[in-house]
Amino acid sequence: MFLNNRLIIKVLSAVATVIGVSMLVPAAVSAYYGEWDIVKAFLLSCIPVIVAGSAVTKYSPKPKDSVLRMRDGFFVVGVSWLAMSFVGCLPFMISGTIPAFADAYFETASGFSTTGSTILSEIQSLPKGILFWRSFTHWLGGMGVLVLTIAILPKLGIGGQKIMRAETTGPTMDKISFTTNETAKILYMLYCGLSVIEMVFLLAGGMSLYDALVNTFGTVGTGGFSNYNASIGAYDSVYFEMVISVFMLLAGVNFSLYYNIVRKKPLNILKDYEFRVYAAIVGASTAFITAMLVIKNNYETIGQAFRYAFFQVSSIITTTGYGTADFDTWPLPCRFIIFFLMFVGGCAGSTGGGMKVIRVAFTAKLINRGISRRLHPQSVSPIKVAGKTVSAETMSGVAGFVLLYIFTIVIGTLLIALEGVTPITALSSVVACVSNIGPGFEAVGPTMNFGFYSAPAKLLLSMFMIAGRLELFTIILLFTPAFWNRRT
Amino acid sequence: MFLNNRLIIKVLSAVATVIGVSMLVPAAVSAYYGEWDIVKAFLLSCIPVIVAGSAVTKYSPKPKDSVLRMRDGFFVVGVSWLAMSFVGCLPFMISGTIPAFADAYFETASGFSTTGSTILSEIQSLPKGILFWRSFTHWLGGMGVLVLTIAILPKLGIGGQKIMRAETTGPTMDKISFTTNETAKILYMLYCGLSVIEMVFLLAGGMSLYDALVNTFGTVGTGGFSNYNASIGAYDSVYFEMVISVFMLLAGVNFSLYYNIVRKKPLNILKDYEFRVYAAIVGASTAFITAMLVIKNNYETIGQAFRYAFFQVSSIITTTGYGTADFDTWPLPCRFIIFFLMFVGGCAGSTGGGMKVIRVAFTAKLINRGISRRLHPQSVSPIKVAGKTVSAETMSGVAGFVLLYIFTIVIGTLLIALEGVTPITALSSVVACVSNIGPGFEAVGPTMNFGFYSAPAKLLLSMFMIAGRLELFTIILLFTPAFWNRRT
Repeated sequence: MFLNNRLIIKVLSAVATVIGVSMLVPAAVSAYYGEWDIVKAFLLSCIPVIVAGSAVTKYSPKPKDSVLRMRDGFFVVGVSWLAMSFVGCLPFMISGTIPAFADAYFETASGFSTTGSTILSEIQSLPKGILFWRSFTHWLGGMGVLVLTIAILPKLGIGGQKIMRAETTGPTMDKISFTTNETAKILYMLYCGLSVIEMVFLLAGGMSLYDALVNTFGTVGTGGFSNYNASIGAYDSVYFEMVISVFMLLAGVNFSLYYNIVRKKPLNILKDYEFRVYAAIVGASTAFITAMLVIKNNYETIGQAFRYAFFQVSSIITTTGYGTADFDTWPLPCRFIIFFLMFVGGCAGSTGGGMKVIRVAFTAKLINRGISRRLHPQSVSPIKVAGKTVSAETMSGVAGFVLLYIFTIVIGTLLIALEGVTPITALSSVVACVSNIGPGFEAVGPTMNFGFYSAPAKLLLSMFMIAGRLELFTIILLFTPAFWNRRT
Repeated sequence: MFLNNRLIIKVLSAVATVIGVSMLVPAAVSAYYGEWDIVKAFLLSCIPVIVAGSAVTKYSPKPKDSVLRMRDGFFVVGVSWLAMSFVGCLPFMISGTIPAFADAYFETASGFSTTGSTILSEIQSLPKGILFWRSFTHWLGGMGVLVLTIAILPKLGIGGQKIMRAETTGPTMDKISFTTNETAKILYMLYCGLSVIEMVFLLAGGMSLYDALVNTFGTVGTGGFSNYNASIGAYDSVYFEMVISVFMLLAGVNFSLYYNIVRKKPLNILKDYEFRVYAAIVGASTAFITAMLVIKNNYETIGQAFRYAFFQVSSIITTTGYGTADFDTWPLPCRFIIFFLMFVGGCAGSTGGGMKVIRVAFTAKLINRGISRRLHPQSVSPIKVAGKTVSAETMSGVAGFVLLYIFTIVIGTLLIALEGVTPITALSSVVACVSNIGPGFEAVGPTMNFGFYSAPAKLLLSMFMIAGRLELFTIILLFTPAFWNRRT
């Protein structure tokens, strides 16, 4: 047998069952608010999925081989995310809140991939249960990504986490060699812990429980779906903005680092190379944008300019996508910084998307080495990070990833350009999806949405969201002939 | 002494003298057309330069050390191109045809770097001698680039030529181990030969001698300055367009390959890896754009669509920049292909700019290897080109260059964005200059010009043209602290 079909079927049906069970939470929320039509839609979606899913999981033929090999692993990860979005979009369609399949699939893929791009122009009039489910997919997706990138992908030889593990100082979870299950458990705890702390801060500021839950899901998952048309700007509250900024930034940190807190050495976090670069980029970008906004008179005081600049920088670099201001009206240099941040993304092993800070830092080192080698062509000058030499193999892997990232965006932009949109719209739509940001520029700017795209374009962008979320390779591999060639 | 100052002064004054002497050619052209004011401007520019330049060359103190070391080499190459543009812009200023320094410098840097971007909105009313000089700088620049990239830069450890030398099959001039002088002489002959053949074809089609010279300069130097506002479109002649397309493409081929003709084995050219990729990109781009133009009804017949598509593809990939159509009005997917071609550029060791075909091909291989390695992480899979293994060192050098190229464009776009132009204008201005193309999109599109930029922006773009022309490192190095640090 080419792929371990029986095992794959078991895993996929288990994933579907989990998503089905998760729908009981928004069903309960709908019941609390008396939205009985919506409760019905959730039950109609989840009961068949749970019944069929658990039956298949239990009664399908036992795999002859219980080991998930490399190729099975790629297949199951890629197809799981495509399938999750399929199951997850049922309540939107059945309730009639998002009747068209392409729209519902886009919205759900955007949720699970923690992108936050939406096809909805009118959000706040939707039923509470539906908006809850929409945001809950972020939270589930964020957790899924953590487990995937920290516990599963490294075993398949993919991911920024692997780079970091090899290169950074300080204890990471991999070095302490937990099993996949143990790692996953610790991650669940850390992720839930972060969520609870943010909830407490938001409730302390007087936010309703419902809003606090929705915003926490969007923040710690670095998703960005809001239950208001004006996103976080709707509260017009400095306190909420600061709390959400800080928690977005915390969600953009490598979760392995938080294990230092468990080990009672929290200051070790500050010693981490990637963390320092991340903090430096956030600081420099905020300072630059604040200065530009003051110079160009976009806001009256420095304080105001800082408030909007800091929130937007935190929101974009972590690939959350929440908004408090329409950054598409900011001076062009600010928009370029934001565009640059869209590529950077969060740290490896965080819930953030993008290329990841560590890869950007390595790329800068590679460029710098290229320049200095012109002066000293004979000298052996290995690239060092935090005192350790980075292997040529690792560097070429990082360069290959960054170039693949750019290449994917070029191809995506070319395809989306067929929709007849402006170049900036096409490019930023693809970047916003591949990097799991949410909003882009112009027709997909912070005050706009993706609703106008054709159904094929929406499905294509959904693919890009999932591919970006899974570090590109997982999805791209499925489309290569080599993957399906039995002899390779 | 830190730099070999005396030797550098001798080289620079010799370069200035050569440029001064070159001005006697357009002076003669002006005299022929009875433009005596212009003759005066040329003589006022060149006589002091020739006198002072040759005096300094001859009488300045003899260098203690006649060897041009690495650091001196970089300095002298970078500063030579800056100085050439300075000397070359004098006739424009003295004649009053381009009175402002920033404008005249931009136009001359654009000429010598074979970019072809112009600040002029009205071209054809200028004196014949001035337009001749403007185009002659392309021809001189093209020759300078060939000698630099094939004979000098490899000795400094820079350039696509070096990559190619190590990797391609078939005889290259380096393998036959000529001295720098011998190589330069062969290049002069090949370059002049190509120019003469194009001249013959243009004259045979009934073009005037003056126009044939101007167009030949622009074509074989892959420059793109025309003596008509409508560029090559002004002739509206399929014959001239085809001749110029073919010669642009020939100028975009590695000149070392033409040595196969001298050795009476011309078919070896077709075996060259880079040449094949180049031909494939031209063919595929032309086919795609032709198809798009027909589908979108931009032209009435397939023949017409092919005519304009082929010319524009040849013009852009070779970084010439001639136009027969306003490609900024073409469908967006066509514009994206053109934008992509702006990055590709000609082959290494040609007069074309851009990243060079060989680097683009290597980048594609690097990305592809990255994908296939996910499936076979244990297998050793070196990258092969034409049957030969490419070293990890070479690959990381290419990746570093490509990433530096992208980074340079990002920084440049950010700086040009301060001018308050649209994002596409800012980005395409920088790409057009760094890749030595000529026109960009929107406000710097094929029917527009760079005249509206501020003086600082024009000087910055001039730097980008020269940096792009000199494979980036030569100019960028001069701005690094390491270059000026005596201890490194």
